[in-house]
Amino acid sequence: MQHLATDKVIPTEHIIEALEAVIKSGDKVVLEGNNQKQADFLSRALGQVDTDKIHDLHMVMPSVGRPEHLDLFENGVARKLDFSFSGPQSLRIGQLIEDGLLEVGAIHTYIELYARLYVDLTPRVALLAGFKADRQGNIYTGPSTEDTPALIEATTFKNGIVIVQVNEIVDDPQDLPRVDIPGSWVDFIVQSDQPFYIEPLFTRDPRLITDVHVLMGMMAIKGIYARHQVQSLNHGIGFNTAAIELLLPTYGESLGLKGKICRHWTLNPHPTLIPAIESGWVENVHCFGTELGMEDYIAARPDVFFTGPDGSLRSNRAFCQLAGQYAVDMFIGATLQVDADGNSSTVTRGRVSGFGGAPNMGHDPGGRRHASPAWLDMRTDQNPMTKGRKLVVQMIETFQDANKPTLVESLDAIAMARDYEMPLAPVMIYASDVTHVLTEEGIAYLYLAKSPEERRAMVAAVAGITPMGLARDPEETARLRAEGLVAYPEDLGIRRAEATRDLLAAQSISELQQWSQGLYQPPAKFRSW
Amino acid sequence: MQHLATDKVIPTEHIIEALEAVIKSGDKVVLEGNNQKQADFLSRALGQVDTDKIHDLHMVMPSVGRPEHLDLFENGVARKLDFSFSGPQSLRIGQLIEDGLLEVGAIHTYIELYARLYVDLTPRVALLAGFKADRQGNIYTGPSTEDTPALIEATTFKNGIVIVQVNEIVDDPQDLPRVDIPGSWVDFIVQSDQPFYIEPLFTRDPRLITDVHVLMGMMAIKGIYARHQVQSLNHGIGFNTAAIELLLPTYGESLGLKGKICRHWTLNPHPTLIPAIESGWVENVHCFGTELGMEDYIAARPDVFFTGPDGSLRSNRAFCQLAGQYAVDMFIGATLQVDADGNSSTVTRGRVSGFGGAPNMGHDPGGRRHASPAWLDMRTDQNPMTKGRKLVVQMIETFQDANKPTLVESLDAIAMARDYEMPLAPVMIYASDVTHVLTEEGIAYLYLAKSPEERRAMVAAVAGITPMGLARDPEETARLRAEGLVAYPEDLGIRRAEATRDLLAAQSISELQQWSQGLYQPPAKFRSW
Repeated sequence: MQHLATDKVIPTEHIIEALEAVIKSGDKVVLEGNNQKQADFLSRALGQVDTDKIHDLHMVMPSVGRPEHLDLFENGVARKLDFSFSGPQSLRIGQLIEDGLLEVGAIHTYIELYARLYVDLTPRVALLAGFKADRQGNIYTGPSTEDTPALIEATTFKNGIVIVQVNEIVDDPQDLPRVDIPGSWVDFIVQSDQPFYIEPLFTRDPRLITDVHVLMGMMAIKGIYARHQVQSLNHGIGFNTAAIELLLPTYGESLGLKGKICRHWTLNPHPTLIPAIESGWVENVHCFGTELGMEDYIAARPDVFFTGPDGSLRSNRAFCQLAGQYAVDMFIGATLQVDADGNSSTVTRGRVSGFGGAPNMGHDPGGRRHASPAWLDMRTDQNPMTKGRKLVVQMIETFQDANKPTLVESLDAIAMARDYEMPLAPVMIYASDVTHVLTEEGIAYLYLAKSPEERRAMVAAVAGITPMGLARDPEETARLRAEGLVAYPEDLGIRRAEATRDLLAAQSISELQQWSQGLYQPPAKFRSW
Repeated sequence: MQHLATDKVIPTEHIIEALEAVIKSGDKVVLEGNNQKQADFLSRALGQVDTDKIHDLHMVMPSVGRPEHLDLFENGVARKLDFSFSGPQSLRIGQLIEDGLLEVGAIHTYIELYARLYVDLTPRVALLAGFKADRQGNIYTGPSTEDTPALIEATTFKNGIVIVQVNEIVDDPQDLPRVDIPGSWVDFIVQSDQPFYIEPLFTRDPRLITDVHVLMGMMAIKGIYARHQVQSLNHGIGFNTAAIELLLPTYGESLGLKGKICRHWTLNPHPTLIPAIESGWVENVHCFGTELGMEDYIAARPDVFFTGPDGSLRSNRAFCQLAGQYAVDMFIGATLQVDADGNSSTVTRGRVSGFGGAPNMGHDPGGRRHASPAWLDMRTDQNPMTKGRKLVVQMIETFQDANKPTLVESLDAIAMARDYEMPLAPVMIYASDVTHVLTEEGIAYLYLAKSPEERRAMVAAVAGITPMGLARDPEETARLRAEGLVAYPEDLGIRRAEATRDLLAAQSISELQQWSQGLYQPPAKFRSW
C-alpha cells in the first residue's frame, strides 16, 4: 500500500488500486452515506475495483441514497447490506433482493446501527467524507460532521483502516478552519474528483403550506404544546411541522406562550425556524446534520446553534439522536399510514425504505429517569411507581390524496413483511408509544385511553371521512369529546375560519431571507420568487 | 485570563485564580467525575475559590464519587446538582439535601445526562481530566477516555470553556502515545499536583465466589444463555456474573456452547473474563472505562479489545452505553431489592445513590428495529406486529443477609420518594422490562407470564424462604414448573451437588494472572496470595 500513497495522501488517480490493496473479499466495510454527506467518490471507486480481487463485501451504511451505492451489489463487489435508510433507492433495493443480488442483514434506526459497530458489526474498513484535510490527516468536516465520529471511532480503535475523501487538501494545518477528526485516527486521505454531493433536504417553502396545515399547527400549539408545557422537542421534516415553526411568532405569541414552550430543539437547521429564532423563542438547537444555505445565518447565531470557533455548525447525528431519544419532551412528525390502533408506517409495497431516526425519537425511552413537567403530565395516576412518558405525536392529514386514506385498517407493512420474509413488520412507530394523534379533524389524546377499544374509538373520532372515520359511533365520539379524550378545533376554542396562511410569520422563502436579515442564502432551486 | 496562562498552559499554582477568572456565579459547570477517572485536582481547586466571587454554581456530573465534590456544596460554591451516580457519597448527598445546601436538578442514567448537555443542560465550563497533553492541548486520555468525548463536545461547540487537568505535559506532540481529544477543542490545560485518582472497581476476587454463585451461574448458562442463544451481552459487576464468566470455559465448554453464545460483550475489562478470552469464547469487548492492572493484557489482545495504535484501551462510555442499550441481546445483573411484581431498586433509606447505567441497559429499548435470535425468542406469538425483546435478567440471592430478604413486598424506593418529595420512586429496573428473575431457587421466565397475577406467582416461586416465598401456593408452583414458566435446577438437569467452586476456571486472582500468561498485573490490594 505504501507505494500508492505519500505519507497519508493517496493520489486521486490511484484510488482504485489503493482500495484493491486495502480491502479483502468478505470484509465488513462502512461507507459513509448520510442524509446529506456522501462519500460518493469512494463509492464510485469501489464500484470499479476488480471483482476477481474484491467481492462479497458486507456493507454497513447509515443511508443508502445514491445509485452508485447499489451498483456495488449489481456488479458483485458487495453482497450483504446492513443499513438504516434508503429513501430514493428503496425501490431498487427491493428489486435487488428479489433478484438474489442483495442480502439484507438488518434494517436499523441510525443509532442502533452505530451501536452495533461496537458489538457485532465492527468494520475492517471505513470509507468516509470530509470537506478538507491537512497532510497529517486532520479532518475538517465543516457543518456536516453528521455520522463521522460514530463511524470512525469503531474502525480506528479496532485496528481497522480509515480512508477519508475530502474536497481539498491543505499543506498548512493552520489552513484548516478547525479540526473535527484528529489526524491520528485517519490512515489515508484522498482528494475527490469533485466535491461530495450534498442537497438541501430539509427546506420547506412556506408557499406550499396550506390553510389545513395552519389549522393543524394551531391545534398542536394550543392543544398539545401549551397544554403539556412542552419545553424541548424534535420536529419532523414535513409541511405540518414547518407550519408550527412559522406560527410560533404569531399565533403562539398571541397566546402569551413565548419563553414558556419550545425553548430547546433537536433539529436540523430548518430555514422555517428562523422567524421563531429571531423573535426570541429559541434558546438552542442541536443538529443531526446541516442544511445548505444556512451557513451565514448559523455563523451569526452561535448563541443558538452549536458551532466551532470558525463559525460553522458542528452537527453530530449520534449525539443529536441520543438527545432526541432521551432529553426532549416531545417528538412530533407525520407518516404515511396509521392503523386503527395507532401503529404507523411509511412503507409502500415494493419499497424497502428503512427507518432513519423516527423510531428512535418516536418512542418512550424506558431507560429515562429524569422528570420534566410535560413528561410528568402524561401520567394518569399519582402512584410513585408510575413513570411519566415522552410525548409522541403523529400529525397527519386524514388523506394522502383523494383516493388514499392515511388512516387504514391494516398497514402495508404487514404485507411487506410477508413479501420479503421479514421476521417482523417494518412498523415505524408502535401504537403503544403514541400519545397523541392529530389530524385536521382534531386531537386524540391516546395516552388517556382506558382500554384498547377506547383507544380505537379515539383514533376513529379524528379519522374524518376515511372508511375508519365513517364507521365510528357518533354517540361514542360525543362522549369522548365531552370527557376531553378527543378535542375538535371548536373544543379548543379555535375557529376554522381563522386558520389561514396569513398567520404564518413568513409566507415565502424570500420572507425567510428577510427575517434572517439577508444571511440565509436559499439554494437556487428555492429562488423562484 | 491570558496573564494567567502561557498559550494554553495554566501553571499549576495559578489554577484557583484561573478558575475565578473563567467561571461566573450561577454557571452550569460540568465536572468530570466518572467511575474511574476524576478531575480531582480541578474539583479541589474549585473548592478553594473565593465564594464572594463564585457561588451558586449548577454542577453537572456523571458521577459524584469524591468527598471534595460535595465540599463544593457545603461551602456554597455550588448550589444545584444534576448527576447520575453517587456511590460512596450517597449518604452525604442525602444529608446536604436535608440541610438545604444542595438542590437536586434530576438524577439520570449516564447517557440521558449526556443527552441533556445538548438540550437544556449545556455547560458554560467543563473541567475534565486526561493522562497527558501537549502544549497545543491535544489530550491523551489513555484507557480512561470514558465520558470525556461526550462532555467536551457539548461545551467546546457551544462557546463554552474547556479546562483539562493532566498528569503530565509533554513538549513534543510526538511524545503523546496517541490523540484522544484534538487540541483545538481544549482552551486550557493544567498539570495536576498529583496523578488523578483511580481505583480498580470491577475486579472480583474468585476466592469470594461461593458454591451458590456457581449454582446460579450454571442455571444462567443452561437455562437462559443456551436456551435463548444469547450472542451479545452486558454483565453487571457482582460475583454472580463473575461466576458465569469463569464457568464458560468449564461448564459452558462441557455443554458444547463455545462459539454459540457470549461472543460479543459490552463490559469493562473484567479480569474474570480472561479465562473465557484465552479459551476462545470472546470475539470482542467494548468498554465503558478501564480496569487497573489490565493494561498489558489488553495491549496483547487488540483482536478482542478496542485499542489505539499505542496498545492502550480506547473506552467510551457514551458509545458503550449506546451499544449496551441498542445492540446487545441481554443485560444481566444483581440488585438489592425486587418486589412482588419484579420491580427492582438499589435504594437504601437516606442514601441518594443515583442510577448509573443499569436502567439504560436494563430496559427493552422501544426504538430497536433489528432482530436477533435471542430477541425474537422473547416473542410469545407469531403476529408480525409483535416485536422481540431484549433479555433483562435480575440475578439475585433470595437474601442479602440472614435478616434481609432481597425479595420484598414493597421497595424502599417508595419511602425514599416520599422522604425527599421526588416526583417518582427511584426504581432501577421496572417489572415491565424484566424478562427473567434468577435466584438460587430457580428461574422465573417472566416474559411468558399471561397475567400480572401469574407473574407474581412466578416471582414467589423462586423466592425461597423469604416471606414472599413462604406465602406461595405449592400447587400453583407445581403448575408453573410443569408448564415451563418456572424452572428449578433439577428441571434444568442441574444437580445442586455438582455446583461447586471446583468448576471455576480460576479460583483466585493468582490463577487469573496465570491464565493471562503473566500479563494481568493485579493491583496491590488483590495481591494477597
